[in-house]
Amino acid sequence: MDREKQLRDFLLKGDKTYMPRVSVDCVIFGFHEDQLKVLLLRWKDGRWCLPGGFVKWDESVDDSAVRTLQERTALNNIYLQQFHTFGAPDRERGKKLKGIPDSKKSWMHDRFVSIGYYALVEFSKVNPIPDWLSDACHWWDLHKVPALIYDHNEMVEKALEKLRLSLNDHPVGYNLLQEKFTMPELQRLYETILDKRLDRRNFQKKMLSLGILERLKERKTGGAHKAPFLYRFDKKKYERAMKQGLKLGF
Amino acid sequence: MDREKQLRDFLLKGDKTYMPRVSVDCVIFGFHEDQLKVLLLRWKDGRWCLPGGFVKWDESVDDSAVRTLQERTALNNIYLQQFHTFGAPDRERGKKLKGIPDSKKSWMHDRFVSIGYYALVEFSKVNPIPDWLSDACHWWDLHKVPALIYDHNEMVEKALEKLRLSLNDHPVGYNLLQEKFTMPELQRLYETILDKRLDRRNFQKKMLSLGILERLKERKTGGAHKAPFLYRFDKKKYERAMKQGLKLGF
Repeated sequence: MDREKQLRDFLLKGDKTYMPRVSVDCVIFGFHEDQLKVLLLRWKDGRWCLPGGFVKWDESVDDSAVRTLQERTALNNIYLQQFHTFGAPDRERGKKLKGIPDSKKSWMHDRFVSIGYYALVEFSKVNPIPDWLSDACHWWDLHKVPALIYDHNEMVEKALEKLRLSLNDHPVGYNLLQEKFTMPELQRLYETILDKRLDRRNFQKKMLSLGILERLKERKTGGAHKAPFLYRFDKKKYERAMKQGLKLGF
Repeated sequence: MDREKQLRDFLLKGDKTYMPRVSVDCVIFGFHEDQLKVLLLRWKDGRWCLPGGFVKWDESVDDSAVRTLQERTALNNIYLQQFHTFGAPDRERGKKLKGIPDSKKSWMHDRFVSIGYYALVEFSKVNPIPDWLSDACHWWDLHKVPALIYDHNEMVEKALEKLRLSLNDHPVGYNLLQEKFTMPELQRLYETILDKRLDRRNFQKKMLSLGILERLKERKTGGAHKAPFLYRFDKKKYERAMKQGLKLGF
């Protein structure tokens, strides 16, 4: 099936498979060596956007986000967190259908509400691949995100705000750092997400008070300075904190 | 217009006004004198539910939640916080249409995704009134919530979880307590929301460290014990913390 017929079928008959009016969009943050990036797709018409898609009639919205991300970028096994639903009245899909003669009859031709999901991954460990609608899929520096379609820039901002707030009550770092890491390495992860410097002593005190770190007997070797302690996450306590929140006080 | 014709028009022509497939539901928590309650409506068929409704084509989903709450319960000026979107595939609306002959043609007859909002109000200050679809609108003790329609019990649970987590990074109390209050009164508010006892000294230390309270020169009078200090919220700092989060550490 050529690409044009495939697109036409999708526009005119897609509502047999997908619910109209509801979409999902994924903000995938990538961390690697003190850098924080976001994953963007480029449509064949040149415009950049978040990887997003639609909800099959027989799947949950959470499952549709996972499938969409997999189909559009080939990223697998990513834990996605729903963070906000975007529902401004001018979220029209009709605009992108020009060039398709009957597009006004399409289920896509009108307002959509979009459910946003985010994730944080180690970007050197994954290899995103664009789908048939797109010609590129890249990690972008968060400070250099281009103008995106619709309200996708707002989605990136909101997801970043939620990710930063989540540090107040959820742990971060598992799957982003090596299994064994030093306190300065953990601090740089937090500093990169928050985009600001943190006080070394306060950071260490706070991290140790959370009760999710295990200090190892071995120390890191190879540096010029006194060898720093190595830590690892206590997986059970980490997972409990992911579920219940860190309860920093209450 | 009699009620049956009104309902029939809504079911068969409502999609001229409202988007199909998307609804909103409101979990309104009420606090008063160490009690936490939730506001429920009873349909004329006897089943209890959250106050919910639909999204007009020309309004944002956030505005539709405010309007819905006002129309269904007569509650005004409530700040609603979007907390989660519920999208299980078996969220069918068709089931409630029995008795209406053409109900399969209705825009309501199929799956809906629902966007959840919550709020916390002083329940003695508001006077909820049921709309034309309902015959009662009551505050229910959170420990005695009855079986609700669809997934509305799950919505109440999830909203409560989010409200409790929000205490980790957002202040609470403004509009719930008297303008001037004692530390034990503030502590009882937190204990009521969290449904557990808190240590008095840790609570006071933590609250004072947040920098949103102002200690007054006057003390509370009338009690048998030594008169306790009175506090009030520093409104500017409180509002900044509502927006930016308390940042308990970072």
